[in-house]
Amino acid sequence: MTDTEDAWIALAHMVEPADPAACARIERWGPTEFLSRLQARGTGLRHEEGMLARWSGYSAERARERADRIGARIITRGSPEWPRQVDALGPTAPFAMWVSGAADLRLIALRSVSIVGARASTPYGDETARSWAAELASERWTVISGAAFGIDAAAHRGALAAGGVTIAVVAGGVDVPYPRAHAPLLDAIADQGLVISEVPPGESVRRQRFLSRNRMIAALGRATVVVEAAVRSGTMATAHAASTLMRPVLAVPGPVTSPMSAGCHRMMQEGMAIVVGECADVIAALDLSSITQAPLTPAPGSPAQIERDALRPGQTRVLDSMPSRGWSDADALIRASALAPADVLAGLTELVMLGWVEEGPRGWRRLRVPPAESGTELPR
Amino acid sequence: MTDTEDAWIALAHMVEPADPAACARIERWGPTEFLSRLQARGTGLRHEEGMLARWSGYSAERARERADRIGARIITRGSPEWPRQVDALGPTAPFAMWVSGAADLRLIALRSVSIVGARASTPYGDETARSWAAELASERWTVISGAAFGIDAAAHRGALAAGGVTIAVVAGGVDVPYPRAHAPLLDAIADQGLVISEVPPGESVRRQRFLSRNRMIAALGRATVVVEAAVRSGTMATAHAASTLMRPVLAVPGPVTSPMSAGCHRMMQEGMAIVVGECADVIAALDLSSITQAPLTPAPGSPAQIERDALRPGQTRVLDSMPSRGWSDADALIRASALAPADVLAGLTELVMLGWVEEGPRGWRRLRVPPAESGTELPR
Repeated sequence: MTDTEDAWIALAHMVEPADPAACARIERWGPTEFLSRLQARGTGLRHEEGMLARWSGYSAERARERADRIGARIITRGSPEWPRQVDALGPTAPFAMWVSGAADLRLIALRSVSIVGARASTPYGDETARSWAAELASERWTVISGAAFGIDAAAHRGALAAGGVTIAVVAGGVDVPYPRAHAPLLDAIADQGLVISEVPPGESVRRQRFLSRNRMIAALGRATVVVEAAVRSGTMATAHAASTLMRPVLAVPGPVTSPMSAGCHRMMQEGMAIVVGECADVIAALDLSSITQAPLTPAPGSPAQIERDALRPGQTRVLDSMPSRGWSDADALIRASALAPADVLAGLTELVMLGWVEEGPRGWRRLRVPPAESGTELPR
Repeated sequence: MTDTEDAWIALAHMVEPADPAACARIERWGPTEFLSRLQARGTGLRHEEGMLARWSGYSAERARERADRIGARIITRGSPEWPRQVDALGPTAPFAMWVSGAADLRLIALRSVSIVGARASTPYGDETARSWAAELASERWTVISGAAFGIDAAAHRGALAAGGVTIAVVAGGVDVPYPRAHAPLLDAIADQGLVISEVPPGESVRRQRFLSRNRMIAALGRATVVVEAAVRSGTMATAHAASTLMRPVLAVPGPVTSPMSAGCHRMMQEGMAIVVGECADVIAALDLSSITQAPLTPAPGSPAQIERDALRPGQTRVLDSMPSRGWSDADALIRASALAPADVLAGLTELVMLGWVEEGPRGWRRLRVPPAESGTELPR
């Protein structure tokens, strides 16, 4: 733990996500200097007392303990698990995130797609979100969404049903299920993927936090698929955020008689979104984005290849439970590793992404160990 | 009647529409010179005997008599009624057209939009075609289509139901109803608008003639709206033709689960078509096309204004039946002019387009007579 990490954790408690005035000063002074100035009431911000009150009697250590108690962990800007694509948000990028679930956020977000849409979705939109998310998940794309009613829930459920990985970015604390009816869905997402938030546990949702959450969804995914959106909706705001970040925005057409497709059509007309007529169009756009953005999956022996020494303990344990040759199915690996099924799944996903393990119709098998000259730098 | 007009009529009998080899030679030599060379078997074309056989024992006079007998007229390249926008097809533009109906083709095609789509349309597509055609027709846009099953028929019917003007461009002779089940529809179109063809009466439809008919539809409309289209369909060919002619192609999105919308989505993805989410989008695109193409409706006193002396007899008769002030409804004008209702409607449509008459909720009324300096040139 460094002072800087602790400072980020403190700031994540004190500053509302994407507060432009505070973020600009933090960018200028750095997190520890900003905190010193804040203690001395010298930031020039009006809401200094309110910010300090939020952290009063607290510490990074206590924050970590609290995260532990709810089965979450805190990552901060620069942490090994930090998904660097959110840094594209600039000064208003999150300071820290609370992460609930076994998978490595950075790894699973490398090959990810955001699927968003209307809460008041139609059966057509729900079915499109569900089936495309399932198809994307089965092609090892991580599906990111916001766990809201409607399209969000359909996307998460599609990914889960396909045995895939999905990330819910929530607007309140990771221990505050919202909407309340989605508590079981959020539990399932944390079991098979991740629930993440940039606000501390216990924090409730607020109007502004939905907007800042939307920008996180836009920043995390390689592309954002808009399944249904009313004109001038929160979904349109997410799409605008993705577009501003130069992430491809892909919009699903629908009946011209459906107000829930009108936002999608508007985005196409304005040139903000490209038209995706089938899930294969999404995959093609994502493959293209991999050329223009960064490698999705490090090839064995590539400079992006992580060395064995850099593997997390959970990853090593799954890897060591695999025979040196031949395929193993999930049950065999759960038995051999004595890990929870969710941890085995998370470990396998990461090992596949890192190029150590190959997935096939009969399960997983080791790939040849990459040569020693490969770097330790994680792909970004 | 000039020799050139007669030559065009002969060629319209002898040459298949858009025959590239024959059209290139006719372009180079002119129609009369081409006919002389053809008589001398000197065109270098393989099918000279076949072409001559089609005209054997015939004459332009007899062709006109035959057209008269079926209630049609023949117009040729350069005729006053010739819709000049088809000349954009270059050497393969039609030589002549058979026109059935009272309205002036050139005038009603000035302010026109083509609506095309799948024969195997869905109820969603039919309803969209019908309602948009009705809305466009009620805004005085002439709706052009091909009288086929599905989208074409829905578009014609929508325009007819709205009391609007519609043009059916048919692939066989104007007296050969195709499909046969649409004989009553074609009769209604000829009553309230026009049925036109570039092949002579009695000619049957053929595969190639559908394709050449499609290019006519694309060339006649200021823009082409594709309501539903399967991938690699005849409708896609029409859209390609419109695109090649630099006419806007407007595609209607639909459910991604509908194969009948897949062609529309493909065209949007390829940048060939722009997305229209409501009929107002079509009107906006048409209004834009009027800026880039040509004036839609000559304003009173504009150089495009036709002088009273240049009005057709039917137009003059309708105009003279109107009181100098105040509104008249259709019944009053039919009584006062002693013309057939279809002729009154056609005359009124043309007089409105020419700026002599204004249409309003209580019928029609004369506009102030334009000043004498206005030219006699028809708007193109």
